[in-house]
Order: sequence, then structure tokens, then C-alpha cells
Amino acid sequence: MTASFDRDVIVQQMRRIFMPRGVAVVGASGTPGKLGYAIVDNLKNGGFAGHVYPVNPGADEILGYRCYKSLDEVPDDTDVALISIPARAVASVVPSAGAKGIAALVVISSGFAETGERELQEELVRLAREHNVRVLGPNIYGYYYTSMDLCATFCTPYNERGGIALVSQSGGVGMAILGYSRSRGMGVSAIVGLGNKCDVDEDDLLEFFGQDPNTEVIAIHMEDLKDGRAFFDTAQRIARQKPVVVLKAGWTDLGARAAASHTAALAGEDRIYDAAFAQSGVIRAHTLEELLDWSRALQLLPDPEGEDVVIITGAGGLGVLLADACVDRGLGLMSMPADLDEEFKACIPPFGASGNPIDITGGEPPETYRKVIDIGLTDPRVHSLIIGYWHTILTPPMVFAELLGEAVADARSKGIHKPVVVALAGDTEVETAARYLEERGVPAYPYAAEKAVAALAARYQFWRSKNDAGISS
Amino acid sequence: MTASFDRDVIVQQMRRIFMPRGVAVVGASGTPGKLGYAIVDNLKNGGFAGHVYPVNPGADEILGYRCYKSLDEVPDDTDVALISIPARAVASVVPSAGAKGIAALVVISSGFAETGERELQEELVRLAREHNVRVLGPNIYGYYYTSMDLCATFCTPYNERGGIALVSQSGGVGMAILGYSRSRGMGVSAIVGLGNKCDVDEDDLLEFFGQDPNTEVIAIHMEDLKDGRAFFDTAQRIARQKPVVVLKAGWTDLGARAAASHTAALAGEDRIYDAAFAQSGVIRAHTLEELLDWSRALQLLPDPEGEDVVIITGAGGLGVLLADACVDRGLGLMSMPADLDEEFKACIPPFGASGNPIDITGGEPPETYRKVIDIGLTDPRVHSLIIGYWHTILTPPMVFAELLGEAVADARSKGIHKPVVVALAGDTEVETAARYLEERGVPAYPYAAEKAVAALAARYQFWRSKNDAGISS
Repeated sequence: MTASFDRDVIVQQMRRIFMPRGVAVVGASGTPGKLGYAIVDNLKNGGFAGHVYPVNPGADEILGYRCYKSLDEVPDDTDVALISIPARAVASVVPSAGAKGIAALVVISSGFAETGERELQEELVRLAREHNVRVLGPNIYGYYYTSMDLCATFCTPYNERGGIALVSQSGGVGMAILGYSRSRGMGVSAIVGLGNKCDVDEDDLLEFFGQDPNTEVIAIHMEDLKDGRAFFDTAQRIARQKPVVVLKAGWTDLGARAAASHTAALAGEDRIYDAAFAQSGVIRAHTLEELLDWSRALQLLPDPEGEDVVIITGAGGLGVLLADACVDRGLGLMSMPADLDEEFKACIPPFGASGNPIDITGGEPPETYRKVIDIGLTDPRVHSLIIGYWHTILTPPMVFAELLGEAVADARSKGIHKPVVVALAGDTEVETAARYLEERGVPAYPYAAEKAVAALAARYQFWRSKNDAGISS
Repeated sequence: MTASFDRDVIVQQMRRIFMPRGVAVVGASGTPGKLGYAIVDNLKNGGFAGHVYPVNPGADEILGYRCYKSLDEVPDDTDVALISIPARAVASVVPSAGAKGIAALVVISSGFAETGERELQEELVRLAREHNVRVLGPNIYGYYYTSMDLCATFCTPYNERGGIALVSQSGGVGMAILGYSRSRGMGVSAIVGLGNKCDVDEDDLLEFFGQDPNTEVIAIHMEDLKDGRAFFDTAQRIARQKPVVVLKAGWTDLGARAAASHTAALAGEDRIYDAAFAQSGVIRAHTLEELLDWSRALQLLPDPEGEDVVIITGAGGLGVLLADACVDRGLGLMSMPADLDEEFKACIPPFGASGNPIDITGGEPPETYRKVIDIGLTDPRVHSLIIGYWHTILTPPMVFAELLGEAVADARSKGIHKPVVVALAGDTEVETAARYLEERGVPAYPYAAEKAVAALAARYQFWRSKNDAGISS
């Protein structure tokens, strides 16, 4: 749909959407419980520093903001108009938006193609083109852009800033994104609903987030692509500079049929998607949990400098699960060079296992973990570390978390940036330890083993596709 | 290894291990921080009502219990001796244990085959056979049996009673089990470490838990099988009466190599395991998280009465992910009969989607969820429900959780027991809602879709293998 704009124009348009000077809310309401109230309330409580212009012919003021009778009256610095009025009335707003020079309508209203009202939606698109206005939506929860404290949504405010831009076609998935992010303390740059995506599409957002200094990782939930060629052309460029993870829903027959009735999506042949994702360097997640977990980890992890992964574990049993997962996820366990093996051996008890995994055993004090981890971080032949922690009295969870946090920080201060992921087996304190580690840039997973490996594998996938394309890290 | 005992004898032996009158602790210590102290402390703090007999030649009393000089002196009602002394000294205890009529040594000590000391371990087994004493371990964290408040371990006490018996070969995996169980409020009947399993093996435990009225689900982490035939013979009988889930570690070359150095396990050809699990009705988990999640769900879910699954969702996007997952996990979405379709249609807005998934859309009040769920629960043609909840202002998470909890309870009071699983997309309140639902027998997963389906599929796998074997539910 965006073939008609060139890249610079798209970026300019998107900049005005994500960094607006002023935002109008058409259908603003002073009545708590209404969507039009929630939107104004979230703009205000979210802390947006730009102008907010409620539009409602029946009110003079809403939540302390001066209210305008129509979009014709709002000040000229309005870049975006959020729309929360009945579907049938939406198209009528377009000419005024065009006349004002507004960059985009963000149409939260539903009642378009997803309910069978295709003509309403087509008319909206036709008018928008005619008046040079972009349309985000319709049928969406809105969007967030945290570096502007912009919560342009009827959902709840979110302001944990970070480098992940998350895009979802579905509002339900959007709410899962929001809850997961808050629960895990995950910093996001943006959360965007696409809904029926009658105009603004994944490729527009890729174009913007690709050049957005606030965004390091792009995560997309999609049910279809309106314009596959445009998406993959853009992805080809972007996905080797910043990790792009996609959860493509509707990949089975029954899922595709459900998608068709949900957002009028035409899911298409899944094998074609699969091949196109691989070719363009897009990382494909197969579950919502993978999309969220991998986004989180992709942001925290640096690129490795090679394929040689080393597993260090306090519990032999975890080492086995981690080794299985490495094979399953296509990670290469380093063949331990004799001198390095000796170095590790010198730190662990005689009945521990050297080689790879290195099993320091469960009877060891914090110093053993620290020594072995330091060797792994320092030796340039080791490219990534997977650590399997076992909760013991000698090395309790937070003692371990602190020593690992310190070891990673020390390495960084010497210019060593290696991916480190952790699987934590232990009592409930490991949840606190996991949170502590993630706050220090180390993805950590309580009560799980394979998830740590899958997360590291996602970063490897990005790094490899970047290398294949000849882009140095 | 257990071929020499017949079933009744095994059950009698295991009963004495799990329901001992008296427990001796050889290597008990009065010094906090020592393993021998932690074991006695856990027996005491765990609330074990039987007798505790510390054995230590250098002490008169430990933690308020009278201390014995040697195992020869402990009272005759001693059924189990927990052993926490150096490996080299363990075998010497066996004759006294035999003379006392003790059923089993639970050897927590390490330093046997896993550190290369195969002969020490063989000698232990030889003597144990000679003196008619069973051996659990060596190289284990111990075991729990909650209905006896028995925490025979150096780990922390656990007393949330329930129907899941969890067995792990690795202590690390055991600690993950413990933490997950506590974090999720998961009721367990037993947690058992097997370690080197020089004698007592998965088949002994299957035999016991199979007939144990406190156990409804059996979950096993294993790195190898010492006697595959014995295991599968037993599993064949048990796994169609109670769900048995197995995580077989070491299923890749590298994993198998790691297992060999961890518990001297001989992992064997994975395809053979795969076929044998399927034939004997064992449900195979592929990750630690699946083992834990599925055990939890298998306990909560009743058997379905047929293959017709219905998805009810408040978010079309979740419906798509759930439908995909059903196909992926081999669940059959019901073809909606016309009359039932009409019944559902009458409850949902005209732009909602009937069929299957049924999308009630996000703008609906609690009553709509309730009506649609009630139809699904009541109509005998619907065999299972998968619910995709979308957090909205109109139906917040706890309002949803309460209405669903009530709907399920009402159905049960009418004798209707159908599997219901829930995927929750929303802000952090969905975590509370998930916990609330699980306490009422409904497996619920925040920020995830596919996990709910995978859990239901595990119950279907059990039910189908039971049906194939001609056992009615």
C-alpha cells in the first residue's frame, strides 16, 4: 500500500506520528468509562509534553484541556488526530485533517472491514489518499512511544523506556505485550496497534523503527501482509541492522480461517512466509511467548564474535538439558582446547566435569562460579556463555546473581561484551535473582533450562544473517 | 534392576520408604550449615509425625532428638536410614541396616559412580542385596512425601499437598521442581531424587505411585533407564490409569555425552525411547517447562468425553493463535452444528465471529462471556473449552476470573466436568486472575496463548491412550 511513498517521505510521516507536536482527539469525552475519556486521560497521565486538543462539539473543556468543536478549529501544530467516533462518521473527518496538514488519522474506532464494512474502509482510504493523510488502523488500541511519554491509547499508560518496538495486529496480543512488559520490567520504545492496517503497514513501521535511535529491536505480530513484496524489501534492509522478530499468526489452515474473520486477513501459504522470513533475515517466533521472550533477550544481548558456546553449570542435570537445547536450536558447543580445559579443571573439584558442559558441581562456594565464569568471559576463544545455576546453601540465588552481575560488569569495563544467558534451578528466590540479572543485561530464566538457550539462539540467528550479508558487527 | 522383586513386594518396600514409622539419619549433625544438620532440621520443621533418630557417635542429642551412637542402636520401628556420611563409609552401614530390618538406605552422599567410583557403588549394591535392603540414590537431594509431612532432604521443607508426584534424576532439576511448585502453589504428593539410581529406579516408583491414592499424576525427569524393559512394562500398566509425563534428557548426541559424565547415564538411541514412550502411553515433554506446566495441568484437568474442542475468545487475535496451536498440537476444533452456532450467535454482537473460534469481541460486558461459556459447558456436543481472555475496562481480569470460576463450579454441581483452559492477554492483573483460576481447577496462562493449548493437548494424549487400550474414563 505504501509503494507510492518513497522512504524519506515515509520516515517523515512516521516521525510526525511518533513525535507529534500536537495531538487532537476526535470523539474526546469528559465522561469516565468512555473510550474518548480514557484516551485524553492517558495522554495526560502518561505525561505527554506536546499539545492535546480534545475535539467534541458539546464540551468546552475536557480534563483541563480546552475542547474544540471540530477538527477545523484545532491549532496548526496538530500532527496526529486520534479518532474515536462511530465508524460511519470517520471518513467525514478526513478533508478537515487534510486541510489542517495533519499527518495521520489514528483510527481507534472499529466497525470497518473486520465487521464486513469493507466499503466504509475503502472510502476512508480513498479520501485519505486524496487529502494526503496517512491512516493507522482502523480497529486498534492506539499506540505508545515512550521517549515522548506518548500514550495514545484507551489502554493503560506505559512508560518503562527501552529499546524494543512492539507492533501487533491484534488488540488482544497488544494487551499481552503490555502486561508482559510491565511484569518483566521490559523497556520499550513503542507499542503500536495495526488492526485492519488499511494504510500504515508493517513496512512503514520497519522503515521508521529501522532509523529510530530509540529502537534496537523490532517485534511484530502479524496475521497477514497486505503487501508482501514491500515488507520483505524493507525487512531485507532493516533486519540485518536491527533484530526483527515476527510472530506470524494464521500459519495453519484453521488459524488462517480464524484470521480471515478477525481482521479480514488473507494469510497465504505459510511455506512462502517461512522462506521469505529466512531470506530477509527476519527471526521467526512460533509462539507469543517466544516473541516476547526473544525480544527481551535480543535487546539485552550483545552480538557474539563467533560460534563457540560454553556451558557452565552447577548442576550436571541442567548441563544435559542445556546441551540438548543447544543442539536443538542450532548452537555450537565449543570443542574445548586442551590448555583451556586445564585452566577450567584447576578451578573445579576433581569429581566435577570439565569439557563442555563444565560441571562445577553443587558443593561449590561462590568463588568457584566466579573463577570459572571469569575464565569464560576473558578467554577470547569462548564466544558465548550459558550458565546453569543450581540453588544451594553454599551459593544462594542472590549471591550468585551478584557475583555474575559483577563479573559481567568487570568484563564490560575491559571492553569485553559477550552474550551470557542463565537458567536458574532453585526455590522461589531465583525469581528475584532473575530480575536482578535482567536489570544488568543478562537474560535469566527461573525454573527453565531450554528458554535460555532459545533466547541466545535468537541473537545468533540475527548475528549470522548480518554476517551472511557481509555487514560487520 | 528390580526384576528380582515382584510387584507386591516392591509396593511394600516403597510404602515403608514413603510412609516410614521411624527415620534414622546417619551422619546427623548439630552444626548448622552441615548437610546432616539440614536433614534433621527439615524432618523436624517439615512436621514429620513419625520418629526421628539421629545417628552420630559424638553427640547425645541433636535438635531435641536423642542421638544414637550407631545404626545398631536405633529402635526397631526404623523403616528408612537417610545416609549423609562420606561415600567410602556408606557400605559399612548396610549390615546393621539389614539386621535392623530397615527397608531402605536413602543415600544422599555423593562420590560414587558419578565421580568414577564405580566399585564403591557396586559394593554398596552387592551388600544391599545380600542384606535385603533397598537403596535410593546415591548422589541425591533426598525425597518429600507431603501427606506424611516428610521432608527427607537437605533442601527446604515443602508442604503444599496435592496430587503430583515428581521424580528427578538430577538435583538441579529437583530444585527447579521445588521452586516452580512453590511459586505456582502447585500441590505435590511427592518429590523424589534418583541420582545414580543404583537400585531403586523409575519402575519401582511407578509401581508405588500407580497405586498411591495421594498421587494422580506422575512426572519423571530421567537421563537414562538402567532397565528399559522393566520401565516400559510397568509404564504400560500405570500410564493408562494415571498420566505419566517424562522429560528424557540427553536426547541429542551432546546431551547424551553430558549425561554420561553427570550420572554415568547411558542415554541410548532416542528414537527407541520415543517409540517406547508412545507405545506405553507415556506423555513425552521436550523441555523442563513443559514437564512442569503439563504436570500442573494434568492434575487440574478432567478427562474430556470427546475430540470436539471449542475456542471462545474476547480477542480475535488470540483466537487465531489458539487455533494455530490446536492444529499444531493435534487437537480437533469442532465443526459447529447449525443450531449451536445460532445459540452462540444470539449472545454475541453481530460483528463478532461465530463458528469456531467464537469471537465475542473486546467490547462486551461480563454477561456475554458468561452466556457463551455456559452454552459451551452445557452442550454435550462440546467436549473441551479453550478461552482466550482479553483484558478490557468492561470485563477486567478478576471479574472474568470470578465469572469463569463460578461457571465451572456451577457446571460441576450439575455433574458436568469438562476440561477448560485459559490464555490471558492483559495487564499485570491477569497474573492474579490466573492464580485464582488455577486454585479453582482451571489451568490459566498469562501473556501466552499456545501454552494453554499444549496443556490441554497433554490431557488429550492421556485420554486417547487410555481409550486405545480400552479403559473407560
